[in-house]
Amino acid sequence: HINDGSSLESLQVVADPSLEKRDLTFGSAVEVQGKLVKSPHRMQNMELQAETIRVVGPCDIWSFPLKMKERHPLEYVRQFPHLRCRNNTLGALLRIRSEATAATHSFFQNNGYVHIHTPIITSNDCEGAGELFQIAAKDSAEETHFFNVPAFLTVSGQLHLEVMAGAFTHVFTFGPTFRAENSQSRRHLAEFYMVEAELSFTESLQDIMQVMEDLFKTVTSTVLSKCPRDVELFHKYIAPAQKVMHVTGKNYSLVVISYSEAVEILKQAPQTFTFKPEWGCDLQTEHEKYLVKHCGEVPVFVINYPYDLKPFYMRDNEDGPQHTVAAVDLLVPGVGELCGGSLREERLPFLESRLQRLGLTDAYQWYLDLRKFGSVPHGGFGMGFERYLQYILGVDNIKDVIPFPRFSHSCLL
Amino acid sequence: HINDGSSLESLQVVADPSLEKRDLTFGSAVEVQGKLVKSPHRMQNMELQAETIRVVGPCDIWSFPLKMKERHPLEYVRQFPHLRCRNNTLGALLRIRSEATAATHSFFQNNGYVHIHTPIITSNDCEGAGELFQIAAKDSAEETHFFNVPAFLTVSGQLHLEVMAGAFTHVFTFGPTFRAENSQSRRHLAEFYMVEAELSFTESLQDIMQVMEDLFKTVTSTVLSKCPRDVELFHKYIAPAQKVMHVTGKNYSLVVISYSEAVEILKQAPQTFTFKPEWGCDLQTEHEKYLVKHCGEVPVFVINYPYDLKPFYMRDNEDGPQHTVAAVDLLVPGVGELCGGSLREERLPFLESRLQRLGLTDAYQWYLDLRKFGSVPHGGFGMGFERYLQYILGVDNIKDVIPFPRFSHSCLL
Repeated sequence: HINDGSSLESLQVVADPSLEKRDLTFGSAVEVQGKLVKSPHRMQNMELQAETIRVVGPCDIWSFPLKMKERHPLEYVRQFPHLRCRNNTLGALLRIRSEATAATHSFFQNNGYVHIHTPIITSNDCEGAGELFQIAAKDSAEETHFFNVPAFLTVSGQLHLEVMAGAFTHVFTFGPTFRAENSQSRRHLAEFYMVEAELSFTESLQDIMQVMEDLFKTVTSTVLSKCPRDVELFHKYIAPAQKVMHVTGKNYSLVVISYSEAVEILKQAPQTFTFKPEWGCDLQTEHEKYLVKHCGEVPVFVINYPYDLKPFYMRDNEDGPQHTVAAVDLLVPGVGELCGGSLREERLPFLESRLQRLGLTDAYQWYLDLRKFGSVPHGGFGMGFERYLQYILGVDNIKDVIPFPRFSHSCLL
Repeated sequence: HINDGSSLESLQVVADPSLEKRDLTFGSAVEVQGKLVKSPHRMQNMELQAETIRVVGPCDIWSFPLKMKERHPLEYVRQFPHLRCRNNTLGALLRIRSEATAATHSFFQNNGYVHIHTPIITSNDCEGAGELFQIAAKDSAEETHFFNVPAFLTVSGQLHLEVMAGAFTHVFTFGPTFRAENSQSRRHLAEFYMVEAELSFTESLQDIMQVMEDLFKTVTSTVLSKCPRDVELFHKYIAPAQKVMHVTGKNYSLVVISYSEAVEILKQAPQTFTFKPEWGCDLQTEHEKYLVKHCGEVPVFVINYPYDLKPFYMRDNEDGPQHTVAAVDLLVPGVGELCGGSLREERLPFLESRLQRLGLTDAYQWYLDLRKFGSVPHGGFGMGFERYLQYILGVDNIKDVIPFPRFSHSCLL
């Protein structure tokens, strides 16, 4: 059985015993010449009747960690980052990931978005959040900064996309983002990919949710039609109970609830939570799970979060005592938060007073400038690309949907 | 004149003086309602007869650094990374860059390549080269590594693509790469983008050069057909002498010379070089320039470089006293090295002895593994994406072809 990596299916080579070679083992690379003929077997269309077989690269099967006809667990192959792509499951995953990448680019291009390479290195420590990676020229003295200022790996391209939203109607980016999170969670990586979009002249969260939904449905249906066998492998052997298929139906619409409604649902839940649900507190994983279950194990948009829970750039809803911002999170079964977005505060006085209270006016002078020179209502969102793959394929651990996973205590190769 | 960023052309709005507003200034964002009618003017097809005009976001023209009807030099707008995308030249550049990005993805997808997100953070200090960025969790003690081992920003995805070339016939990546180079050169950035491809079952440099040429021609002709006006702006005002057009012709073929021939050409040159040309020494910028001129100001492939000049992974040509490896560089007018590639050493004994001599056997055990388990002849190349844009547009400084340039002493936003 020879395989060139283009699909799960192998080509059967039929050979006379005289062609057998000692080094013709599992895992070896071969060059075969012969006739491609219709196969008499039910399971395959064609087979190759070999005339010559040359072993191009033999394989030492005793030390090769992948074994013939064995279904290796994902945890097992994860130990061999340089070889696991030759495993059927990882091969299928990488083909799917490649198609999903192409489909993401096409979706935005077909909808008139300008692609922007937002920077990886930034002097902006975005929201003063912790969990940043700092960078320095190797072997440099600690006190001299290569860039004159401290520099970090990006946690999001949003603020840089907002710059571009001042010049183009729709922009997007699709690149690596980073968190120095000391976590061994099955949903977190230190290096992961985000798809982010920003839309100008947008005054309603509905517009943002519509793009999230269209993106999700378009990419998913492309993947399903381009790699049906590869997806089937996951749904059959990795996540038999996977129910993603229904969200690709044309008439399917996603559920929308407000944060306040979500808290009410949680308060009335018959179960006890480790974290008591309370208006003004973050939704925990256990809460997200319950909400998704409550809505029928379908994707759920939660909108309008408390003002004090969210970053400075989110747009004030000015809605009285339960004071909220125009934020939206998309929660999906099995994975939790898949997308996060918001309308951005485009009004200079609102943004000025908020940054002033946070002591960030100087650092964000350039961001205030965007509101001084032809500001427009705008908003956008980000989607975690690995979480998207986890969700549509039903893969439990995020480390299995990226070619080379990086997380605390591990950076192999 | 209103512009939505979709092209260089603006839409003229014709308004009654009664609609004039005090804050209707250059750079402001407006919402106009009215009738789209055929224009009586020769220069435009349509115009908008305004019924209402609303200033959505005014612009403080006194402090706005972009001025109406002024052609700002690229150096001037570079000072304002948050506003320069609203300048015509940068707007055109960003549209071209977006189209070239999409065309690159399409080229590889249409040719059966699997896209791989090679890692940004790596524990591999590739070739022991200097000029690496090292990363650490912010505020962490110097002695504790987040990943347990020292970690760096990638300088190339090649070795990781070689892993994947053991599972798929053709793979590619297109992402950011980094050099902590203390240079203010017009051709170097600390963060730049590389398009890299790796091909299995390839035994000749010719195959690699063919892909480089096809990629170059396909992406360039797509860009020329998708953004003719934007490209024209560059060829007209930024680089009037730009001669890229001829390389997109179908019958055009690129020049190929060997490194040894190149040295002979340089030795016979009527001019004196700062660095005397000598077999075994690197080609300097002045040499590259001369070679390109000598060949008629066209792109030139230089192949088969001295063994001792090149990294350990390049394939030994075993060609006697003037001992070379199967390497190729593509030199282009005005820019110098645009692409670099090679056949990779797939033979275990050759690679083992070379790594041993370099004392790198332990660090590259995984790379040797790839040659132990079904090794195949393979090769690939990388193309600097910013240099590509510089070349086709005739842009002198690399800082003007990337949205947010990062270089020594500068990391704005």
